[in-house]
Amino acid sequence: MIFIGERVNAGFKDIKKAIQDKEGSAIQEWAKKQTDAKANYIDVNLGTASNKPEDLCWMIEQVQAAVDTPISIDNNRPAMLKEAIPVCNKPPLINSTTADEARMEELFPLVAEHNASIIGLAMDESGSPKTADKRVELAGTIMAKATEYGIESDQIFLDPIVMPLKFMQEQCKEILNAASQFQMFSDPPPHIVCGLSNISNGTTHKRLINRIFAAMLVANGLDAVICDVTDTELVDAILTAELAMNKGIYADSYIEAFKK
Amino acid sequence: MIFIGERVNAGFKDIKKAIQDKEGSAIQEWAKKQTDAKANYIDVNLGTASNKPEDLCWMIEQVQAAVDTPISIDNNRPAMLKEAIPVCNKPPLINSTTADEARMEELFPLVAEHNASIIGLAMDESGSPKTADKRVELAGTIMAKATEYGIESDQIFLDPIVMPLKFMQEQCKEILNAASQFQMFSDPPPHIVCGLSNISNGTTHKRLINRIFAAMLVANGLDAVICDVTDTELVDAILTAELAMNKGIYADSYIEAFKK
Repeated sequence: MIFIGERVNAGFKDIKKAIQDKEGSAIQEWAKKQTDAKANYIDVNLGTASNKPEDLCWMIEQVQAAVDTPISIDNNRPAMLKEAIPVCNKPPLINSTTADEARMEELFPLVAEHNASIIGLAMDESGSPKTADKRVELAGTIMAKATEYGIESDQIFLDPIVMPLKFMQEQCKEILNAASQFQMFSDPPPHIVCGLSNISNGTTHKRLINRIFAAMLVANGLDAVICDVTDTELVDAILTAELAMNKGIYADSYIEAFKK
Repeated sequence: MIFIGERVNAGFKDIKKAIQDKEGSAIQEWAKKQTDAKANYIDVNLGTASNKPEDLCWMIEQVQAAVDTPISIDNNRPAMLKEAIPVCNKPPLINSTTADEARMEELFPLVAEHNASIIGLAMDESGSPKTADKRVELAGTIMAKATEYGIESDQIFLDPIVMPLKFMQEQCKEILNAASQFQMFSDPPPHIVCGLSNISNGTTHKRLINRIFAAMLVANGLDAVICDVTDTELVDAILTAELAMNKGIYADSYIEAFKK
């Protein structure tokens, strides 16, 4: 599993305040905490705190001052990305593009030039898809366009668009079905990713719903996840589901070994 | 989910002693405890404690003295079943037949006559299958033979044969794949069941592995399970996975409501 730590996000008060005050300790602490929890990427999201490229670059620099974990740049504006990508010490993950042609044509040259990776959301300007088939169609559009730019399948992270179980319960099966079909686009397949916490929006048993849906997604090919990597029960669930999918060899100490 | 409580089994010391002493309180207590935990069937297994039909009948009577939950008769010998089935106050679940023709021809008339249900193990005299395809072939043999006897698909519980993750890790995907295909045998589909605890045999994190594999199986059509129904974390995982599969309507109190 490729764990993408969600916590350096200005949607959280401590991060928003850090940006406003240009006082990086909260960002650095979360970068360390998530790296200790085995995050493979630290997602960096400016939220509504600012729309200045220099603030995004400053956040990335704070993370990189604390850890050498790669950055996931949670922004979809080419003007921001053009400044932020070169600040990254390692090839970043760009989070994200949709299947909108104009957007892909702006972002894919950046991905190719910097040997970056990119999350491709299975949606377009007309909004979020309601069926597995529509998700597969939109993801296919992204795969085809990426190929035109020489972007390899392992640089693409397809996102089936997780919707809240509470409000769109019938969508869960469509999401699982879409993820399963994404595996067949290429060999090796693209990565399959999601923003996990959407599934439990507004629910009472958030962490339980997150980890059970994660296990179900792993059974359908999920190999990357944007999540709270410090939720140890979630991580345990994902490690266990991956063992059942025969990814990694069973050892009695598989959980303890991961955390070492 | 159809929960089949596994605890009235002479593999457990207290049950074995109860049979030997003909002192039914332990059996009655477990029958009550599992019924309180919402078991839909109480599995009754004589194990190696006895091979006398009257002992099996006595166990069933003990359960029925305590609760009115239907019985799952965990025995595959026609001579035993012929005496035990009529003791059941409600149509029992017979656990189990294989795809072995001679065995099915002995058991299916009993199922049809008593309007019972039966677990069909996707294995035959040659042993346990190693691939999803072989499991589907054997399950198909069971479905076809059941049809000859007028047994409806909802009286059949197909079991893909869960094998230990620790020792046969590559089998997990085959099991999930087989379960998924079992759903396509008929409309309405047969039930899909498993003996869950096999998955975690010999492992350190037994309950975690049980509940995560259960969620993955629910994503592939599992709708019945032989398990420790008093493991509340397992039950919570299954309830959550079923919500994601759109079985039952989401309510914030879905777990609490189930347990009421």
